[in-house]
Formats: sequence, structure tokens, C-alpha cells
Amino acid sequence: MNSVFKLDQRLENDSIFIADLALCQLRLNNDCRYPWFILIPKINDITEIIDLTAPQQQQLWHESAAVSEWLRNNYVNVKLNIAALGNVVAQLHLHHIARFVDDDAWPAPVWGKYPPITYTDAEQVKLKQHFLATFIFP
Amino acid sequence: MNSVFKLDQRLENDSIFIADLALCQLRLNNDCRYPWFILIPKINDITEIIDLTAPQQQQLWHESAAVSEWLRNNYVNVKLNIAALGNVVAQLHLHHIARFVDDDAWPAPVWGKYPPITYTDAEQVKLKQHFLATFIFP
Repeated sequence: MNSVFKLDQRLENDSIFIADLALCQLRLNNDCRYPWFILIPKINDITEIIDLTAPQQQQLWHESAAVSEWLRNNYVNVKLNIAALGNVVAQLHLHHIARFVDDDAWPAPVWGKYPPITYTDAEQVKLKQHFLATFIFP
Repeated sequence: MNSVFKLDQRLENDSIFIADLALCQLRLNNDCRYPWFILIPKINDITEIIDLTAPQQQQLWHESAAVSEWLRNNYVNVKLNIAALGNVVAQLHLHHIARFVDDDAWPAPVWGKYPPITYTDAEQVKLKQHFLATFIFP
């Protein structure tokens, strides 16, 4: 039996729960500068994609593609930034960020560039509802 | 029949050819600050991972996992940074960077942080030979 999944405290504090997928917890990074979703495989004590089994890796990429498709279908003229870094938060997590040529950090990567501007409660609810109504679950 | 694959000029200038894999050209970024490999799918005019067909995406992740395994097997205490950004060079390319807590940019992402320190010709040859002798082709 699997032990209970334990989400890193910093990921929990800095992002908003959106949905549980087959492999990952999907969260919205709480920074309205950029549409920014994070997939966190619900497996404890792993830090690298290659720590996942081959079937888990395949499922991760299915879920990643679904998030990418949603971002591209819901924002215009988007460039996706997909990344697993983990230099600060070790728990394996995969960023999906919709970038735009007029966004605050363009063309630099977003990490460490500007302090987040958090969503209002109403904005969070609205975006989450829209996401759940339109996302094609992988 | 496929048209001839055309590598972005900037990728060509800033990196060193290592090998042709089934889907991707594998190149070494010419910056000896970090062990840094780049996979470039040999398909023209695509910018996003989700522009690849499902079988191509699967092959990309096989090749990515092989590069990741090689990096982890050949460097000690490594943290992998895997990323498809493409904000500056549009052609789809996937970074694989071995990071260390004492590297120049840690824990920040490497992009745009420091100017590259290029390999000497002898260093390039040595690293490429070692890579080709030990890499498990996916």
C-alpha cells in the first residue's frame, strides 16, 4: 500500500490546488503575472523525472501534454515554457507556463525574476472553474 | 519524403554536434560552466513539444531519459534541469543541464545568467569521445 502523498510545504503555500490527475496533483502557481500550472507526481521522495518508472514517465507526459494543450487553446499567441528544475524545491514538479512577448519577464525565464502578484479569491475561483469546465482530462 | 532538417543558426553556433538519435540531434552546449546537452527534434518548423505527434513525443521522452541517465551516471551529486523554453530560439529544443550546489548560477536557472565559457578543442573531443563510448542509445 502506498504511503500518503506529502506535498512540499513551499509548493503548497505558493500554489492553488486545481485537480488530482491519475499520476499528478495539478496546481496553479499563485502568480497572476503568467498562466502557470504545476504538475507534481503524487509519489514521495523523488526529485528527478527519471526517478519515475517508465509507465509513470509516460503518464507524466500525457498529463503534461494535456496541460500544454489547454494553455495553447485558452490563450492567444502563447509560447509554452515547460521545465523540471527543482534547485530550490527538491520535490519533483513540472512547470507549465504560458509566456507572451509582452509579459513581465519576456524573454527571460520567469524564475526569480519578479515577486509574484497573487490572484484575488474571485480570480482564483473563476480561473479554476473555467479550467475544470474546459480541461480534457488525460 | 521529409525535407532536409534545418538547424537554427544560433543553436548551430552555440553548441557542438554529438550524435544523431532516432528523433533528435543531440548537441553539447558550448559552455563548460555546466554539463549541458540539448535535444533538437529533426523536424522543421515546430516550436512546442505538443507540435510533435504522440509517437514522436514518446520518442523524445525516451531520448531525454537516456540523456538524463547518462548525466546522473557520469557526475556526482547532480540535480538535473530539464526544460523546453524557446523564448529566444524558437526551434523546439530540450535542455538537459547537470546542476551542482556549487555551480556558478546555483540555485538560479542558468539561462542569461553568465556568458558561456567555451570548451577548448581538446576538451570537446575528450567529452564527446567519453560520451559516445558510454551513452546507452535509446
